[in-house]
Amino acid sequence: MPNASDAFIDPAAMLAHWQGHRRLSRRVIDAFPADKLFSYSVGDMRPFGALAMEMLSMTVPMVRGIVNEKWDAFSTERESPSKQEVLRRWDESTRQLDELWPQIPPDRFHATMNAFGQYEGKVNELLLYCIDNEIHHRGQGYVYLRSLGIEPPPFYERE
Amino acid sequence: MPNASDAFIDPAAMLAHWQGHRRLSRRVIDAFPADKLFSYSVGDMRPFGALAMEMLSMTVPMVRGIVNEKWDAFSTERESPSKQEVLRRWDESTRQLDELWPQIPPDRFHATMNAFGQYEGKVNELLLYCIDNEIHHRGQGYVYLRSLGIEPPPFYERE
Repeated sequence: MPNASDAFIDPAAMLAHWQGHRRLSRRVIDAFPADKLFSYSVGDMRPFGALAMEMLSMTVPMVRGIVNEKWDAFSTERESPSKQEVLRRWDESTRQLDELWPQIPPDRFHATMNAFGQYEGKVNELLLYCIDNEIHHRGQGYVYLRSLGIEPPPFYERE
Repeated sequence: MPNASDAFIDPAAMLAHWQGHRRLSRRVIDAFPADKLFSYSVGDMRPFGALAMEMLSMTVPMVRGIVNEKWDAFSTERESPSKQEVLRRWDESTRQLDELWPQIPPDRFHATMNAFGQYEGKVNELLLYCIDNEIHHRGQGYVYLRSLGIEPPPFYERE
C-alpha cells in the first residue's frame, strides 16, 4: 500500500486528466466530416468512428466493473451510428464517468481485478490502459484528418 | 498534499508504466525500414524519426530539470541520425530515466514548475504530458507502418 508521500497522482487529479483527454477526443470525433467518420481510414485500419466506439465500449464499462466488482461481457460495438449519436453517447459517458469514478474505493486502485473476466491486472494499470488506448487511437485519427486535409485540434488543448 | 489513501499510482509504478511504453516505442522505431524512418510520412506530417527525436528531446531533459530545478533551453533536435543511432540514444535515455526518476523528491510531483522556462504546470501533469505525447505520436507511427504494409508491434505488449 502506498504511504502519504507515495502518490504520483491522486484519483481526483487522474479523473480530471482523463476528462481533459476526453474533451480532446470529442473534438477529434467532431472534426471528421459526418460521411467520413465510419468510412475513411489509412492503411486498411479501422475508421475513426470504430475507434471512438471502442473507446466508448471500454471507458464506462471498465469503471463500472471496478466499482461494482461485476463485469459485463466485453464487446466492441459493431454498429456505425451517426456522428451526432456518437457525440451524444460520448457526452453521456462523460457524465457517467464523473458519477462512477468517485465511487471507486481508494484502496481498490492498488488491488488486482480480472476486468471483463479476461484482463487481469492492477486496477490503476487497467484504467491507464483505457486512457492510453484512447490517446493511441486518437493519434491515429490525427493522421486520418491530416490525410483528409483537415487540421486536427491542438494536442495540448484540453479544456 | 495527498494522504495515504489518495494515490492513484505511486512514482515507482508510474516509472515502470512509462518504461513499458518506452519499450513499445523502441519496437516501433525498430519496425521502420532504416531508409523510411526520416523520409516517410502520411498527410504531410513529420516522419516517425522526427517524432522519436522529439520524444528523446523531452524525456530526459524534462526529468533532469524536475530533479535539478534547472532547465536547459528546450530544443527539438533537427538532425536525422541513422536508425541504429536513434536506437542507441533511446537505450541511453532509458538508463538515464531509470537513474534520474528516483531522485525526484516525492513531494515534488505535486509542486508547480515552469518546465524549460516556458511550460508551467504541476510536475505530475508535466510528466504525463511527456508520456501522453509519446503515446500520441507512436499511434501516428502505427498508421505510417500500416500504410507501408508493415504490421506494428502489439499495443498491449510492454515487456
